[in-house]
Amino acid sequence: MNAEIIAVGSELLTPYRLDTNSLLLTAELNQLGIRVMRKTVVGDNRQELREALEHALSHADVVVCSGGLGPTEDDLTRETVAELLGRKLQRNEEILRGIQERFRKFGRAMPETNVRQAMVPEGADVLDNPRGTAPGLWLETNGRFIVLLPGPPNELKAMFENEVRQRLARHAPKRRLYTRDLRVTGMSESDADHRVASIYKKYAEAEHTILAGPGEIQIHPRVWSDDPAAAERILNDLVKSFELALGENLFSTTGQTIEEVVADELTQHRATIATAESCTGGLIAARLTNIPGSSTYFLGGVVCYSNDLKTAWTRVPPEIIESKGAVSSEVALALADGIRKSTGALLGLSVTGIAGPGGGTAEKPVGLVHIGLADEKGPKERAFRFPGDRERIRTQATNAALDMVRRYFLYAARGKG
Amino acid sequence: MNAEIIAVGSELLTPYRLDTNSLLLTAELNQLGIRVMRKTVVGDNRQELREALEHALSHADVVVCSGGLGPTEDDLTRETVAELLGRKLQRNEEILRGIQERFRKFGRAMPETNVRQAMVPEGADVLDNPRGTAPGLWLETNGRFIVLLPGPPNELKAMFENEVRQRLARHAPKRRLYTRDLRVTGMSESDADHRVASIYKKYAEAEHTILAGPGEIQIHPRVWSDDPAAAERILNDLVKSFELALGENLFSTTGQTIEEVVADELTQHRATIATAESCTGGLIAARLTNIPGSSTYFLGGVVCYSNDLKTAWTRVPPEIIESKGAVSSEVALALADGIRKSTGALLGLSVTGIAGPGGGTAEKPVGLVHIGLADEKGPKERAFRFPGDRERIRTQATNAALDMVRRYFLYAARGKG
Repeated sequence: MNAEIIAVGSELLTPYRLDTNSLLLTAELNQLGIRVMRKTVVGDNRQELREALEHALSHADVVVCSGGLGPTEDDLTRETVAELLGRKLQRNEEILRGIQERFRKFGRAMPETNVRQAMVPEGADVLDNPRGTAPGLWLETNGRFIVLLPGPPNELKAMFENEVRQRLARHAPKRRLYTRDLRVTGMSESDADHRVASIYKKYAEAEHTILAGPGEIQIHPRVWSDDPAAAERILNDLVKSFELALGENLFSTTGQTIEEVVADELTQHRATIATAESCTGGLIAARLTNIPGSSTYFLGGVVCYSNDLKTAWTRVPPEIIESKGAVSSEVALALADGIRKSTGALLGLSVTGIAGPGGGTAEKPVGLVHIGLADEKGPKERAFRFPGDRERIRTQATNAALDMVRRYFLYAARGKG
Repeated sequence: MNAEIIAVGSELLTPYRLDTNSLLLTAELNQLGIRVMRKTVVGDNRQELREALEHALSHADVVVCSGGLGPTEDDLTRETVAELLGRKLQRNEEILRGIQERFRKFGRAMPETNVRQAMVPEGADVLDNPRGTAPGLWLETNGRFIVLLPGPPNELKAMFENEVRQRLARHAPKRRLYTRDLRVTGMSESDADHRVASIYKKYAEAEHTILAGPGEIQIHPRVWSDDPAAAERILNDLVKSFELALGENLFSTTGQTIEEVVADELTQHRATIATAESCTGGLIAARLTNIPGSSTYFLGGVVCYSNDLKTAWTRVPPEIIESKGAVSSEVALALADGIRKSTGALLGLSVTGIAGPGGGTAEKPVGLVHIGLADEKGPKERAFRFPGDRERIRTQATNAALDMVRRYFLYAARGKG
C-alpha cells in the first residue's frame, strides 16, 4: 500500500519554512504498513494543487494533504478536492455550530469568512479538530482514500491519532514496517560505514537510513514484512551484528540520546555529577538538565570563561593556567577535580578548548579540546581535535564529554574502572 | 521566472530526514528573482523521478534537482535526465581523472562504480565539485534550464555559489525579490497578529511569512519588483509601520538573534555579564557563548540546581530559600545580585523556575519562572508563566532572560534605567 503526501501553503515555498508535518505523517503511515512514495509542496494555488492531487490519485492508495483548510480565500484545499472529484460542497450545520461555540468561548463573534470551514464535499466524513476551528475531511474515491488535515502541527497530530489512524488501520495491509534506532558515537561516518558495510550486504531484505550529525551517527534499519515474528528475528540478528561491528561505540539500540543513557547510568548507580565548562559554555549542563528529574543526579555546573573564575570556582592553581595555558591537559584535570570537590559530586566533568573562529595557534589549533573526568580516585583526561565551525566543535565536544561519562560506567561495570 | 525543486533520495521519504537543501536553493533562486512554485521529493525510483521531471519541465523555467548523483546503482538522476531528453551519456575523461585523483589523495584506489559519475549527457555543462566526487550538470532544453546538484548540503552550497549563481544571473529577470527579517519577542503570536493586521492590508503588494517559535516571532515581508529603489522604499515604510505597531517588542529588523543583539549592546557599552541559572540549566550561558568573541563580555555563569550550590556560589541566604522556596522572587533577586558580586561583572542575570513536568503545585505551577537582573544599583525581578512542555518552557525562559538584558540597555539609553 502506497501513499503520497501533499503539503499546501505558500509559506512552505519560502526560504524560511519546511513542511515538517510529513515526518510525523510518514512515521504514522509506515507503522500501518503504508509506504510513502512522494512528497509534494505546493503554494496556495488552485491549479498546482489540482495537478498534485491528480498525480497522487493516479498513483497512490492513500493521499494525505496538510494545510489549506483555513477560513481565508487563500485556503483552497476543500474547494479543489470537491471540484476534482465532481462533488458539491454542502454546509454542515453541526460544524458551523462548533466553530461558533469555539469563538464564543474566547469571547469573540465568528467572522463571516469562517463559514467556509463548515463546507463539506458530498460523501465526506468530517474529522473532529479539538485544537482548532478547521475540521479535517476523509474521502473515498475508486478504492482510494483522501485525508485532508489542518496545517498546524499540533492540530494535525491530534487529528491523525484520534481520527485517521483507526480508519486507515481497517484497510491497512498485513505487510508492516519494523525498525530499530541505533545510535553511535566516537567514530567518523566513514569509519562506521566501513565497519558495517558487510552487514548491509548480508541483510539485503533490510533498508538502512544513516544520519550523521556532529559527534553522533544514527542508523535506522527497516524491514517490511507480513510476519511480525520473522521481522523481529531479522532485526534482532541485525542489531547483534551491529553490536559486534561497532563495539562500545554503539550506545543505544532504542533511540536513546546520549544524555538519556548517561542519566540512566547515574540514576542506576545513585551517582551525582557536576560540570566545569569553558568552550562548551553550558551546553553539557543544558543537555543533562533537559531530562525531567535531572536534579536527582545533577548538582550543578560552572561556565568559567575567565581564568579568574576557573580559580575561584574550581580552585585551578593560577600558576598552572599561567605555565600551561587555559587550554591544556593540566587545566582540564584540575577543573574536573576541582568541580568534583567544590560540589561534593561523585563525578566531576570538565571541558576546555578552542571553539574558534579566533584564538587558534599552530601549537593549539581551533578544534583542540581537552575533556577531564574525575572520581574519588582522581581525574583523567583526553585530548580531541574536532573539525568544523564553532557550533560543530561545541556540539562534538559536548557529545564527547557525555560519552566519556557513559564509558566510565561501562568500564566500571567490567571491573576495569 | 519560475522554478521547481526536486529532491531525490529514498532516505528523504523516511520519518528521519527532511530535504533541507530546498531552503538554501529557494533563498538563492529568490535572490535572482526566480519564484519557487513547487517542491517534490521522490525516492531512488526511475519512474517517479521521470514523472517529477516531466511535470517540472512543462511548468517551470528552471528545474533544480538535488541528489541521486552518487556512484551506486541507486543513483539514477543522470541516466533519467539523459533518457528523458533523449541525449546519450558520454564518458568525460577529465572528470574521471579528477575522481581518480581524489581517491589517490586519500590513499585509496577508485572503485569501478565511480566511473558512472564521469558520465555526462550530450550537450551538458559540467559543474565542478571541489568538495566531493559527484560533479554537477547544467542542461538547457527548449529555453528551460535543468540544474543537477549533489545531495550533501556542503557540496550543493559550494556548487551553487561557484557555478550556478552566475549562470542563472545571465538569464534572470529584472523583477527581483526584496525582503526584511523582523524579530519580535515579549508577546504572543495572536497579539502580534492583531497589532499588525492593518499593515498587511495597507501593503497589499508585500507578502508576509510569519514564523512563531517559543518566545520569538519572525516576520518576513517580501516584495517582488523590477524597481529596486521602489521596493526598498516600500520595505522601509513597512518596517516603520511595524516599529510603530510593535514598539520595543521588535528587537531586530535585520534578522539578528536576541543573543546577537545583547552581545552588541554589551560590547558597545563595554559591559560584562555573568549568569546564575536554575531551570534553564545553562541554556543562557550556551546561547551567549555561541557568539565568537563572547569572552570579552561574558565572564562566566553557574548552573546551581541544588540549594546548597545556590548559597555556595551566589551567597543566597539559606533562610530565604527555606522561607520563600527556591522558585521565588526573593531567590531570583539574590541570585542575580550574588552572581554579579561574586564574578565582578557589571550585570548579573538569574533564572529560577519550574520547567516540569513534575514539581508544580497549585501555588507554584509548572511554567512559573522568575528572572532577575542586577546592576550596581541592585537587582530587579519579573515573574513569568510560560505554557508548553519542559523544552518550550526552558527556551521561553532563556529568550525572556536575554530580552530583559536587551531592554535594560534600551531603557538606559532613554535615561530611564
